[in-house]
Amino acid sequence: MEQRVVSQNRRELPNLNALFAPRSVAVIGASADPDRIGGRPIHYALAASFQGRIYPVNPNRTEIQGLKAYPDVRTLPENIDLVVIAVPSDSVSSSIEAAAERGAKGAVIFSAGFAEMGAEGVQRQNDLRDLCRARGVRALGPNCLGIYNASIGHTATFASFLQDPVPPTGTIALVSQSGAYGSYLFMLAAKRGIGIGHWVTTGNEMDVTIADAIDHLSEDPTVSVIGCTAEGVRDGEALLHALERAHDAGKPVVLLKMGRTVGGAAAAKSHTAALAVDDAVLSAVVRQTGAFRVATTEAFLDVLYGLNLRRPLSGWRLGIVSVSGGAGVLMADSAEDHGFSVPALPAATQQRLKDANPFGSMTNPVDVTAQALNNLALVGGPVRAMLTEGGYDAVVAFFMNWLSSPVTGPKLRSILAEALVGLEDRTLALAASGPESIIREYERQGFLVFDDPARAVATLGAMARIGAALSTPLPGTVVPDDMPRIEGTEVDEVRAKAILGRAGLPLLREMLVTEPADAGAAAGAIGGPVALKIVSADLPHKSDIGGVRLGLVGVAAAEAAAGEILATVRERRPDARIDGLLVSPMISDGIEMIVAAHQDPVFGPVVMAGFGGVLVEVLRDVVFRYGAIGPDEAHRMLDELRGRRLLDGVRGQQAADVDALADAIARLSAFGVANAGRLESVEINPLLVRPCGKGCVVLDALMTLPGPGIEIR
Amino acid sequence: MEQRVVSQNRRELPNLNALFAPRSVAVIGASADPDRIGGRPIHYALAASFQGRIYPVNPNRTEIQGLKAYPDVRTLPENIDLVVIAVPSDSVSSSIEAAAERGAKGAVIFSAGFAEMGAEGVQRQNDLRDLCRARGVRALGPNCLGIYNASIGHTATFASFLQDPVPPTGTIALVSQSGAYGSYLFMLAAKRGIGIGHWVTTGNEMDVTIADAIDHLSEDPTVSVIGCTAEGVRDGEALLHALERAHDAGKPVVLLKMGRTVGGAAAAKSHTAALAVDDAVLSAVVRQTGAFRVATTEAFLDVLYGLNLRRPLSGWRLGIVSVSGGAGVLMADSAEDHGFSVPALPAATQQRLKDANPFGSMTNPVDVTAQALNNLALVGGPVRAMLTEGGYDAVVAFFMNWLSSPVTGPKLRSILAEALVGLEDRTLALAASGPESIIREYERQGFLVFDDPARAVATLGAMARIGAALSTPLPGTVVPDDMPRIEGTEVDEVRAKAILGRAGLPLLREMLVTEPADAGAAAGAIGGPVALKIVSADLPHKSDIGGVRLGLVGVAAAEAAAGEILATVRERRPDARIDGLLVSPMISDGIEMIVAAHQDPVFGPVVMAGFGGVLVEVLRDVVFRYGAIGPDEAHRMLDELRGRRLLDGVRGQQAADVDALADAIARLSAFGVANAGRLESVEINPLLVRPCGKGCVVLDALMTLPGPGIEIR
Repeated sequence: MEQRVVSQNRRELPNLNALFAPRSVAVIGASADPDRIGGRPIHYALAASFQGRIYPVNPNRTEIQGLKAYPDVRTLPENIDLVVIAVPSDSVSSSIEAAAERGAKGAVIFSAGFAEMGAEGVQRQNDLRDLCRARGVRALGPNCLGIYNASIGHTATFASFLQDPVPPTGTIALVSQSGAYGSYLFMLAAKRGIGIGHWVTTGNEMDVTIADAIDHLSEDPTVSVIGCTAEGVRDGEALLHALERAHDAGKPVVLLKMGRTVGGAAAAKSHTAALAVDDAVLSAVVRQTGAFRVATTEAFLDVLYGLNLRRPLSGWRLGIVSVSGGAGVLMADSAEDHGFSVPALPAATQQRLKDANPFGSMTNPVDVTAQALNNLALVGGPVRAMLTEGGYDAVVAFFMNWLSSPVTGPKLRSILAEALVGLEDRTLALAASGPESIIREYERQGFLVFDDPARAVATLGAMARIGAALSTPLPGTVVPDDMPRIEGTEVDEVRAKAILGRAGLPLLREMLVTEPADAGAAAGAIGGPVALKIVSADLPHKSDIGGVRLGLVGVAAAEAAAGEILATVRERRPDARIDGLLVSPMISDGIEMIVAAHQDPVFGPVVMAGFGGVLVEVLRDVVFRYGAIGPDEAHRMLDELRGRRLLDGVRGQQAADVDALADAIARLSAFGVANAGRLESVEINPLLVRPCGKGCVVLDALMTLPGPGIEIR
Repeated sequence: MEQRVVSQNRRELPNLNALFAPRSVAVIGASADPDRIGGRPIHYALAASFQGRIYPVNPNRTEIQGLKAYPDVRTLPENIDLVVIAVPSDSVSSSIEAAAERGAKGAVIFSAGFAEMGAEGVQRQNDLRDLCRARGVRALGPNCLGIYNASIGHTATFASFLQDPVPPTGTIALVSQSGAYGSYLFMLAAKRGIGIGHWVTTGNEMDVTIADAIDHLSEDPTVSVIGCTAEGVRDGEALLHALERAHDAGKPVVLLKMGRTVGGAAAAKSHTAALAVDDAVLSAVVRQTGAFRVATTEAFLDVLYGLNLRRPLSGWRLGIVSVSGGAGVLMADSAEDHGFSVPALPAATQQRLKDANPFGSMTNPVDVTAQALNNLALVGGPVRAMLTEGGYDAVVAFFMNWLSSPVTGPKLRSILAEALVGLEDRTLALAASGPESIIREYERQGFLVFDDPARAVATLGAMARIGAALSTPLPGTVVPDDMPRIEGTEVDEVRAKAILGRAGLPLLREMLVTEPADAGAAAGAIGGPVALKIVSADLPHKSDIGGVRLGLVGVAAAEAAAGEILATVRERRPDARIDGLLVSPMISDGIEMIVAAHQDPVFGPVVMAGFGGVLVEVLRDVVFRYGAIGPDEAHRMLDELRGRRLLDGVRGQQAADVDALADAIARLSAFGVANAGRLESVEINPLLVRPCGKGCVVLDALMTLPGPGIEIR
């Protein structure tokens, strides 16, 4: 069942060349004032030596910022690729019309007054979107801060960060829904010397979304890394496929999602029209597509900073070097926090290093002690030995303020550079303090520098996780043709189980009866203790109304209990249509899991697994995947459960049949995909996972179909 | 039982005046070279205008760094308070002798070559400690970087941070075991403008420990906050009492513990002679004494930075102001992460603010939008309204790069300052970017400034937690006189339960029998299903050898099972001394908890509680407290369990009798304290907590006494 089918999943690549790399640009609402919204893009383009032609359009002027101004788009000397619109909202449509007539394939719409202004604005925006689609114009915004492509000096933006001296450029791309926060991230990145080559803000996302931008940037050979922030997700499936495309292009995507928490999501809802995202599902999507998620601005920038200087790590072996025991201990703590292994150096290497520096400690962490300040070769030896003989993927080294000294600083830098010769796939991160100018020199050498040792290790950890994700093929799968399709509009427990059985999920031997006497007979036929449960599509919560009895032994007990159940339920819910009683054998040698599938409003079919009973409700120890996954991915999913060890058998219990569990999860995920649109949710709770070799079995299942009027994408 | 007895717990305050504030200092091993270890303290003292007298001692010179040098201590013109020792290890003892003769009550010993050098060094250090004690000299080190007291220019240190221009001083004290890392923290703190008034490194802690330093600084009126880093803990009880003293003095203690993790602790073990600390117990100690623990250097400095500018917060109500919706959402996420409530402004206030700024959003987060850049009063209004009408304890505000503008920057600062007039107990934190010089101006106004909004909120969260801890009295308790004392050297289950019963823990009605027939009779007498368990001090793990049978109904079943148990156990463990079989009623209506007490090697008697069964082993959802606690503190302890909600009854289960559970925890903690030295550990697993009003009951208990040769402090 586990079989990769990639290409059929991919969307066609959006053609956004007119937006990202236009050869000719018209600015409607151009201003002579380089500080005004309509003046900035022109001012910036001149300062950045834009490699295309830029045409100010303004009926009241013949010249703007030294350029000839045109009264309208029709009078331009050539057709244009892109129009930048800096006029009030009621003139946007006519601007699009005019630009489209002159060949524009792209529009950057600064103008506010659309979906962010409530129902009337939404209507205006929908009309504008329809117009753009009809005219074949891909539009950024409205209510966006625009786009910047450093390599060609393309500055269709009024962001204030271009007012400062032209920032350093590079191969990092920034994509942000929020213009203001996107600008802020650009400023902070520039301050840290992170080279931003592309910067895009999507604003109201009337047409071009974050997913489109990621798609486009994934295929741009000048882009190495994509950093992205978002408050909501406009089109979950598109985002999924964009993240997959970036993965296949070998490009890390670092995602800062705003509105992670209940409070944050509520705040986001008030000013973005995008769909609210189930945070746990988003985390699954990020993990499954090989992207990387961060929670804070600092972590976002740290990861971009690391990837600006080095490639992702190839593995999890970390060397720690320190001039102080305490710092080595702190870094060892962080290494463990972030999943690194900190293996000791080979014994012979240790001995050789110890001979050179008898006061030092040479296992890992290596403590070269303050001695090394007098003889910096005592630093170079261990660092090189860790990378070569130790085979470590990265080294983190604490050097206090040694960088700052006019004598020690440059010498240490060249000794470290020597230690890394021929090892360009490895990364050296320094925890040290010093003036910015000196730190920049270390960075030019390719070394990461942080004040805080824990941040250095955290960043290396992110780079290792990204490296692992990029080197792992995505777990695409197909849905077996023979997956059953749900029919009808309601499903009781018996039908639900029957369908799940046809989907390949293992069921108990159960009997449906209507009379108490038949319940007794069924109990006798099954043998051993049985459970009795009322069957009714009207009663999803059977226990609450006395519809369940467990552990009944013998014919008489079962018959009596059946009578009581029927009487109680009929008394309490006389309205309920009762199909009968389900008589099931009691099996208890296993671990109760919950396995469920539902239709996520953003990302579509999703499968969930976790420990059942009270655990799932109180500790929320559950994991998600989107789409149809195979058993291998289901195993990886289970490995993310905090209580994973329970399945291995603790306190002398037998290990559970995890293979059977993974197979059940995979089948349920495929069932969910096969029934997208027909199924709201299905929850198997509990799925009893029996000891190794004995499989698992569906003990109870609740299936909910879309109600009338509930639209499912 | 909950009753505060504070003073009897407190140690006598150590007299460390000669170390922290000497009037006269001799430097033995004084050097004319201001860069050498023996030269730096003198050079620094001259630069810092030390308010006492400093005497270089060096037999080879008559003058050192412009001061008259003395050949030895005997020839000094006056008696001294403090001696600084910068000579090789073999001359340290004679230096102490000579200094003591001249009245020295303190010694700062830079010299290495003691406990850090293995067994021989340990012996040398013990001899030196005995000498110091005999002569009444309190000693810092050996192998330490010394001490710095800024207010009097006391610089008994060779730390390199004093080579730079004299750093800003203030009321923050730094205490560090590691000299190098302590120096690094000083440098980073100085770089951020944090005013350090005292700095102490304890090195090998032969005599003066971190606890002593905290004790002393707690009583120093020039100190407002104590930041502390440690790799190990020399004397747990002393640290406990020092943290309690700081709490009672209203001084926050911020602790960065190195060696939190298994890997970190292993690294620490290799170069510190201090006792390894159980990290979970340390966390309990920190929480219980009202101190505050951080995991990273950055968090350590952030909290000191915040407390350097403002007092701890009085509550958890946070106002959020932003010039961009996205940043507001990010801060709302962080607020939830750190436990803040983000209540909406009163409706009338919202309306008033909305009238002034129709494009803004005025609930909370407040979004003043980029409009406010043109009219900064639109910022001042909401900020003041949040603090007054909203009653928020703090406001966090995102201002992008507005601080940097020559026009906007100073104006914004004065508008914010106005908004805080008369509200000095509130805190305003800004998330903004700008040149350091401008940020310093904002800080001088008392505003906290961070690049990363999440760090701003995290720091406010720490200040709120610290505020809450300082305003809560410490939960001191006494041990009831009637607590039973363990006698003898071994305890089987029956004796263990009997003692626990005398300690006030509720027991089952159980019977000890020796013959299968008696087991049957006992089962009959008890009625209902029973459990049978083998009783033997030699068999702590009864289940593993077939010594337990559960759910036996009726006389015959019990008798048969008893015979089988005895046969199986005798066959598998013929060596074991068997006292009989315990027949117990089966009770299952409740939640299984584990409650335990043990003797922690560092902190003494400790009590633990968590959910029982497999949960405790796999998820480690357990919490600790030291000493004898009362039921109120036991309730707070339970509130820290991740699965706490389980006790309230989920899925229609009844709420558990949490009062009874808290009482059992309190009693067991008192039992542990009463039996310190006689008890290694006692584990009640499970303690069945029954539905509300039905109490709880000890189902199984394992008591371990100190084996011969095991020393318990």
